Amino acid sequence: MSTQEQGYFTEENSAEVVVSRTSADAEARLAEATAIIVKHLHAAIKELEPTQEEWFEAIQFLTKVGHTCDDWRQEFILLSDTLGVSMLVDAINNRKPSGASESTVLGPFHVPDAPELPMGSDICLDQKGEPMLVKGRITGTDGKPIDKAKIDVWQANDEGFYDVQQKGLQPEFNLRGVFRTGEDGAYHFKGVKPKFYPIPDDGPVGQFLQKLGRHSYRPAHLHYILEAEKFETLITHIFDPDDPYIHSDAVFGVKESLLATFERVEDPDRIAAAGFEGPYYEVEHDFVLAPAP
Amino acid sequence: MSTQEQGYFTEENSAEVVVSRTSADAEARLAEATAIIVKHLHAAIKELEPTQEEWFEAIQFLTKVGHTCDDWRQEFILLSDTLGVSMLVDAINNRKPSGASESTVLGPFHVPDAPELPMGSDICLDQKGEPMLVKGRITGTDGKPIDKAKIDVWQANDEGFYDVQQKGLQPEFNLRGVFRTGEDGAYHFKGVKPKFYPIPDDGPVGQFLQKLGRHSYRPAHLHYILEAEKFETLITHIFDPDDPYIHSDAVFGVKESLLATFERVEDPDRIAAAGFEGPYYEVEHDFVLAPAP
Repeated sequence: MSTQEQGYFTEENSAEVVVSRTSADAEARLAEATAIIVKHLHAAIKELEPTQEEWFEAIQFLTKVGHTCDDWRQEFILLSDTLGVSMLVDAINNRKPSGASESTVLGPFHVPDAPELPMGSDICLDQKGEPMLVKGRITGTDGKPIDKAKIDVWQANDEGFYDVQQKGLQPEFNLRGVFRTGEDGAYHFKGVKPKFYPIPDDGPVGQFLQKLGRHSYRPAHLHYILEAEKFETLITHIFDPDDPYIHSDAVFGVKESLLATFERVEDPDRIAAAGFEGPYYEVEHDFVLAPAP
Repeated sequence: MSTQEQGYFTEENSAEVVVSRTSADAEARLAEATAIIVKHLHAAIKELEPTQEEWFEAIQFLTKVGHTCDDWRQEFILLSDTLGVSMLVDAINNRKPSGASESTVLGPFHVPDAPELPMGSDICLDQKGEPMLVKGRITGTDGKPIDKAKIDVWQANDEGFYDVQQKGLQPEFNLRGVFRTGEDGAYHFKGVKPKFYPIPDDGPVGQFLQKLGRHSYRPAHLHYILEAEKFETLITHIFDPDDPYIHSDAVFGVKESLLATFERVEDPDRIAAAGFEGPYYEVEHDFVLAPAP
């Protein structure tokens, strides 16, 4: 239908008139995205019926979010995260076959060049916090162990900060490491029991959460990227199920299947066998990778 | 339902889980707005199924829109305008009783302190462009003329620029004036035949329109704010129905009832009576104000 046939904009036909303006030779995916976004945006406005002042407040909020973004801070991603959109996009793009481990968000603290370490290494370079042994196995959905799987792990320290957030205060590459499985698909490494931490909450998204009576904490977790030939790459976390924020992750990253076991070990024989000098946490979690498409 | 009962985030329950996080003692209208926006935003994402890369492109676009905003430029309002949202909010907030004149967007070029002029004055201070006589009557929905109605008018010049966009090039308060009706409710003033002009299209919103194959022009119009005691204030335009962009206003401001008559007058007697020295345009449009609530 041409613009002229569509007629002038009214409250009733608003979305259709806007969408009808897109030219037939516009890039197809952008045209589709615009049509879908306009339809749902207009439906939201019609349901909300904002006053002019309320709409201007929304404009000012988005402007503040934009002004908070710089090379080091991405406030629109935080907004997407805290509205559950990042996790929804993750879910849509990572529908796994039955039995495969689930994904969750990458987060902003991955670095691509962490060192590859011998299996079993301690990634905690400053000996701060409660010691932890992490172990498990990586298999395919057929249950067979995956040889030469690459395990890229990273975590915050016991105060809730990643090394890149505390340059100079933490050793470089603290609490990061890359490991490679052998034929048994097993992995194990040492780290430090992670702690919950807040997402950056000193900007407009933090103020927004506060007005909603929402906190800004993520429950304690370890990040993983698992890669192996002939398998789909898995970006995920494992979580401490006893964390106070496990049911209210500010960015909705928790999935039931990603709860690991965190066992506090006080038995002297096990402490000695693990190579620690006192009680430690033993975390166990297996991963199942989906076959590459 | 508590967060815990609601369970963890999944692709299916995503919006419900996000909305359930809002605290019971959050500000009620913000909580309502957030619930509505989250519901429709998640529905849009589920329909669009963006890839991670596409979602990041959207984040980058919003970031650029934010970075384009400063004290003089409001790119998020432009985005709202070009997606038809500003006109939708205007429509929702200005549902008029049958017979009353319709509203349209205020636009960014109104100035509050334009001079009050004697009825009939010429607001074109630099004599550029084709002369125009504008006239009409202001009545209530009962058909009775409104005495002492305040008419605040402003328009772009014949090159499509407002005085505030061309400081130094146009006289101060060029093509602006405030008039007051007498008992007959009639108004008339002189100006210059307006011309279509582009909204600011050198930023991310302009690039977005270009990718959609949309132009950035607004059809020629005159702006009005009409105020009178015991009546609802009316913010509106009148449009030149012969403008090439009359069916494709970049911001969707045109309504059929706002099309004025633009008559080119060449009759020497009428030219003399109007006080012009050659052919002019005679524009006639009556306004009907709704009673104050």
